[in-house]
Amino acid sequence: MEIELGRGKRGRRAYTFDDVAIVPTRRTRNPADVSTSWTIDAFTFETPILGAPMDSVVSPETAIALGRMGVLGVLDLEGLWTRYEDPAPILAEIASLPAESATQRMQALYAEPIKPELITQRIAEIRDAGVVAAGALSPQRTAEHYETVVNAGVDLFVIRGTTVSAEHVSSDGESLNLKQFIYDLDVPVIVGGVGTHKAALHLMRTGAAGVLVGFGGGAASTTRSALGIHTPMATAVADVSAARRDYMDESGGRYVHVIADGGMGTSGDIVKAIAMGADAVMLGVSLARATDAPGGGFHWGQEAHHATLPRGRRVAVDQAATLEEVLFGPATTADGTTNLLGALRKSMATTGYSDIKEFQRVDVVVSPYE
Amino acid sequence: MEIELGRGKRGRRAYTFDDVAIVPTRRTRNPADVSTSWTIDAFTFETPILGAPMDSVVSPETAIALGRMGVLGVLDLEGLWTRYEDPAPILAEIASLPAESATQRMQALYAEPIKPELITQRIAEIRDAGVVAAGALSPQRTAEHYETVVNAGVDLFVIRGTTVSAEHVSSDGESLNLKQFIYDLDVPVIVGGVGTHKAALHLMRTGAAGVLVGFGGGAASTTRSALGIHTPMATAVADVSAARRDYMDESGGRYVHVIADGGMGTSGDIVKAIAMGADAVMLGVSLARATDAPGGGFHWGQEAHHATLPRGRRVAVDQAATLEEVLFGPATTADGTTNLLGALRKSMATTGYSDIKEFQRVDVVVSPYE
Amino acid sequence: MEIELGRGKRGRRAYTFDDVAIVPTRRTRNPADVSTSWTIDAFTFETPILGAPMDSVVSPETAIALGRMGVLGVLDLEGLWTRYEDPAPILAEIASLPAESATQRMQALYAEPIKPELITQRIAEIRDAGVVAAGALSPQRTAEHYETVVNAGVDLFVIRGTTVSAEHVSSDGESLNLKQFIYDLDVPVIVGGVGTHKAALHLMRTGAAGVLVGFGGGAASTTRSALGIHTPMATAVADVSAARRDYMDESGGRYVHVIADGGMGTSGDIVKAIAMGADAVMLGVSLARATDAPGGGFHWGQEAHHATLPRGRRVAVDQAATLEEVLFGPATTADGTTNLLGALRKSMATTGYSDIKEFQRVDVVVSPYE
Amino acid sequence: MEIELGRGKRGRRAYTFDDVAIVPTRRTRNPADVSTSWTIDAFTFETPILGAPMDSVVSPETAIALGRMGVLGVLDLEGLWTRYEDPAPILAEIASLPAESATQRMQALYAEPIKPELITQRIAEIRDAGVVAAGALSPQRTAEHYETVVNAGVDLFVIRGTTVSAEHVSSDGESLNLKQFIYDLDVPVIVGGVGTHKAALHLMRTGAAGVLVGFGGGAASTTRSALGIHTPMATAVADVSAARRDYMDESGGRYVHVIADGGMGTSGDIVKAIAMGADAVMLGVSLARATDAPGGGFHWGQEAHHATLPRGRRVAVDQAATLEEVLFGPATTADGTTNLLGALRKSMATTGYSDIKEFQRVDVVVSPYE
Repeated sequence: MEIELGRGKRGRRAYTFDDVAIVPTRRTRNPADVSTSWTIDAFTFETPILGAPMDSVVSPETAIALGRMGVLGVLDLEGLWTRYEDPAPILAEIASLPAESATQRMQALYAEPIKPELITQRIAEIRDAGVVAAGALSPQRTAEHYETVVNAGVDLFVIRGTTVSAEHVSSDGESLNLKQFIYDLDVPVIVGGVGTHKAALHLMRTGAAGVLVGFGGGAASTTRSALGIHTPMATAVADVSAARRDYMDESGGRYVHVIADGGMGTSGDIVKAIAMGADAVMLGVSLARATDAPGGGFHWGQEAHHATLPRGRRVAVDQAATLEEVLFGPATTADGTTNLLGALRKSMATTGYSDIKEFQRVDVVVSPYE
Repeated sequence: MEIELGRGKRGRRAYTFDDVAIVPTRRTRNPADVSTSWTIDAFTFETPILGAPMDSVVSPETAIALGRMGVLGVLDLEGLWTRYEDPAPILAEIASLPAESATQRMQALYAEPIKPELITQRIAEIRDAGVVAAGALSPQRTAEHYETVVNAGVDLFVIRGTTVSAEHVSSDGESLNLKQFIYDLDVPVIVGGVGTHKAALHLMRTGAAGVLVGFGGGAASTTRSALGIHTPMATAVADVSAARRDYMDESGGRYVHVIADGGMGTSGDIVKAIAMGADAVMLGVSLARATDAPGGGFHWGQEAHHATLPRGRRVAVDQAATLEEVLFGPATTADGTTNLLGALRKSMATTGYSDIKEFQRVDVVVSPYE
Repeated sequence: MEIELGRGKRGRRAYTFDDVAIVPTRRTRNPADVSTSWTIDAFTFETPILGAPMDSVVSPETAIALGRMGVLGVLDLEGLWTRYEDPAPILAEIASLPAESATQRMQALYAEPIKPELITQRIAEIRDAGVVAAGALSPQRTAEHYETVVNAGVDLFVIRGTTVSAEHVSSDGESLNLKQFIYDLDVPVIVGGVGTHKAALHLMRTGAAGVLVGFGGGAASTTRSALGIHTPMATAVADVSAARRDYMDESGGRYVHVIADGGMGTSGDIVKAIAMGADAVMLGVSLARATDAPGGGFHWGQEAHHATLPRGRRVAVDQAATLEEVLFGPATTADGTTNLLGALRKSMATTGYSDIKEFQRVDVVVSPYE
Repeated sequence: MEIELGRGKRGRRAYTFDDVAIVPTRRTRNPADVSTSWTIDAFTFETPILGAPMDSVVSPETAIALGRMGVLGVLDLEGLWTRYEDPAPILAEIASLPAESATQRMQALYAEPIKPELITQRIAEIRDAGVVAAGALSPQRTAEHYETVVNAGVDLFVIRGTTVSAEHVSSDGESLNLKQFIYDLDVPVIVGGVGTHKAALHLMRTGAAGVLVGFGGGAASTTRSALGIHTPMATAVADVSAARRDYMDESGGRYVHVIADGGMGTSGDIVKAIAMGADAVMLGVSLARATDAPGGGFHWGQEAHHATLPRGRRVAVDQAATLEEVLFGPATTADGTTNLLGALRKSMATTGYSDIKEFQRVDVVVSPYE
């Protein structure tokens, strides 16, 4: 796969979800005979779907609603819900900003400090509703807030940055020792983004229960233009899945979950993520499109309000269906934005597979969209 | 052709009709000396063209008109003509629906039950006109309705789904044993869609007279966005044509017809389908464009009105010419939408071939549209 | 270069001018030290440019004007100038037709019969002006009119069809024996289009002085959509140039000129055609853009008015400069449409070559336009 | 990397910045621990950035402002500042020209002769401000004006043409002997553009301190359409970087700086240029976008006003931020046009590199923008 780009510089050809497609080649099966369930650590979900820790996607309320539908909603513990007692007017303001000044105003709104007591309160709210409580911190703030998070009784702890490495070098000696950190913690940790076999293998060795594959490649991101960095997702998921197998071998059987994170705007993309080897998918824009999503018709990530180097935008999304219709249908449009689970089920049935793990072996072809 | 997409996942590069083109390399020939005739089982047609079983393409009336022009029109036996005594007002309503609510209203209109007596009546209508009568069922409803269809005196029986496999697995044990079914039947069966060599070989072994190559790849389909599934047609037709040759060898000479189904919007695409190895082509949008097509300026397939997971749209089409002009010209535009047979004939003559079977050997190059 | 497109079907990857670019790698040179002259048979021209036999490009008047500028204008002897005593009002009408009915009206206008006495008269007009007189017939009408053409005193005889083969098969036995025909003729013959090494080699063996490389690939053509046929020009010119070398070897030194015909809309494309091996280029749209071109702001070829299967369109062109400015500048725009010769000269100088023949060896890279 | 384009013609596949992306694979690092400094000859700059010698980018005033920010602004010594005593009204006129007549009027404005005394005066102005003074001449005018430039006390001498070769052939014997010229000169010389390993190696042997990689590939250029010449930048930078290594070996340790020139419209492109091996980047449009850039909302190069063969355009640019914000932020948009240094720093930190030289080894993948 290595290509000579010029004398002395080589690089691999890497593929996006748009570059690949699934091909039916075997028996077919009834959609009703297909299971989409997903188990990580002690938790089993009816769907292999996580809601991304973004203010436009997961609020405490949507985390609860998603949990009841078999989806793991992850709350951003550095977002509006831990900065403001009542984020409702802030969310409303963001949804009403004119495009040209949205970035600048969001930089100001997110300058409000994080309040540890709100972290505690938000996690309790979700736990009390009887669903699995998951919250996310960035690597930069994990050391500062993790005790609050754990004490609040979080079930699954997510550390999510644009890139997370097992080995972070800092001249001030304050970097996080991820391995020690995870070892000391009582709750399972999901960590990422990561995009290569080698980096994933190192993250798996820290004891993480799952790794997020991605690098800010979602619908609201401009990482490629701003930083020149890009993680073509089909190749990245396949690479990290190979790391999962290699790590399972070296660890004597520990299975670390591979969770595709970003770049999945349609049900077809979700299907392809699993086809490339993912155990589950973390969705942003796909859920932000729901009429009952907190973004109110808009979608943005943490990169959108970075104080000096924003690398994302607040983007407008079409609101076509409720969260439940987005996930389970019935669909009344044909564009792959509603009935995500129905589409996954149909795709698995059409190619003759009965569960997510098996479906990772489905055949794919390379055939870029024209 | 296998490419490493990432560690542990490989896939073939597959090609669409847009990726390839025909090159003249040999002698030339007079168009008048070219034959486009096609024979399947006991039936010979002046053209290698089938009208697709879609309500926008084939009604009993157009089936008769097409038959008289040497084209095999296949009636959808699960469409409006077997659900309504008089579909004319329903077709008119569909053609008048606003784009945003078309899917939802069509879901309701197609919820009307299929009436076996209408199946009988529609097939009789076509037969009585003296043309070859062909009708299509989906694999899901074949067991329920095939006796009605056969008793009605159908000449060619088409089983057409987005994917049909020789081996369908179902927990309730009700799946169709395609081999037994075809063996028991008196009429020749055409079955599909299929997209790979292996799946095609299995279908050929069921005793089918022809296989349809495709997977809902037509102009009105959104299968790729919704399911992540895509069958690049140039590669699929070549693969299935190779299966035809391999099956002919293993069966001691039985020739199963390869019929390209979908993705052919211009006469150039029809030419390329045959160049890649097809014996005939099943046309949807190309015929729906006729001023006398039943769609009345619109085109849609069964995927467009699926109750919970629509994977297609009702699309508007330009109505530029009559069915006869679309097929045989004269053309008064230059976009490859009229005089389809004239174009095929000219292309065969220009490259020096005299019949469809020979023309399957014509040279092609890979040169994607810019 | 052969790619497996599917089991049992292979094809070469072929390249267009847009896929390639020239790279400076050697010494540079002064543009003033560069020669662009071209000699075919007994005729030497200051430029390696032919005006295409299309009514929008060459009239008797423009043939004379071009000749005086060192360009070989080829008159279409089956166009308006041999069908009408005074084509001026017809040209004016064509330039005034609305887009939607242009094809149909042009089919009617070109139904007017060709008049042999007008062939004689037009050629005389050009000859009498003291420039090289060249006229073109299609292969279909060569047998009927060539004696008129030769007797009129044509200097260079062009036979130009979408495809011309040395071996044309016809059931009525009336096809042209090209070899005998050229042997019998006193004037040098340029013949084409052709797109492959093998077909070119056969044409060269007929005794032609030059071959045209192309297959209706110009700006006004829809051959690819209509017939599925396409000749990616960069590959075709390289292939036919290799045939020139091979034929020179087998014939003991006869040099047959390779003339790229079609697909060159900018000066950059002309440069690339020569870089791929062409001795000269036949231009259509590039010259039709002149304010004094006969098309009056429009451009079309013979395919545009075919009676039953038009495979081209009348296209509107921007009229930015006189014929002389288009060819020799000065340019006042930067889009590669004016000062074609200045650009060629500059490109040759920048890469250090001093004549057309040498420049055929310049380095190229593959780098598709984004 | 060589591809057969047709029989007898081969070419390398070459890559643009858009074709490649950086992948994080190692440790991460704090952006604060990253150095972006660049040293050439006796001069050290805080950034690896040069302002291109274009009238829309560098005036004496901006050269001084840039110098104070750690950027080397290079003044075009054949531009408006050496043709007019007061270019302010000329710049204002250019910014007010209608698009259709801009080229023609600029041809007239730049016909004004260059005045040696203005060369002296402009360089003195920059020097007197205490920043490094750099000025550029074209190869065609270097012999005529270099003594004026050197006597004026320039610190860095830039010779910049669309292509510069070590060996220039001219029939009038007046060409510049670059090696002798550089040897005789007291100031370090940066020379280019160049696009291949071989040509770069020859330029390095002339004694240049740095070479510019590029061929008029910037935002305002139409070289590809006009001349057919194109230098895909990712491949060119890698090739020339390999020449730097090879020349270092053959010269016993002389390090010639490789400066990417053109085609970098975003911070992501700057990052990629260094990733492919560049020591520094020369920016045009990126700096012309500043509200305090001399172009006043427009950008153009010397090619835009060539008297007979313009190969560039005056293009309008969005003015979003001051020069300081463009370079160092804070950014209030996310499109890679502001905080260029912040983005570079972040990208280096994310991939774990601490200085520019190290960062040249970062991993890249091939993944074209869709």
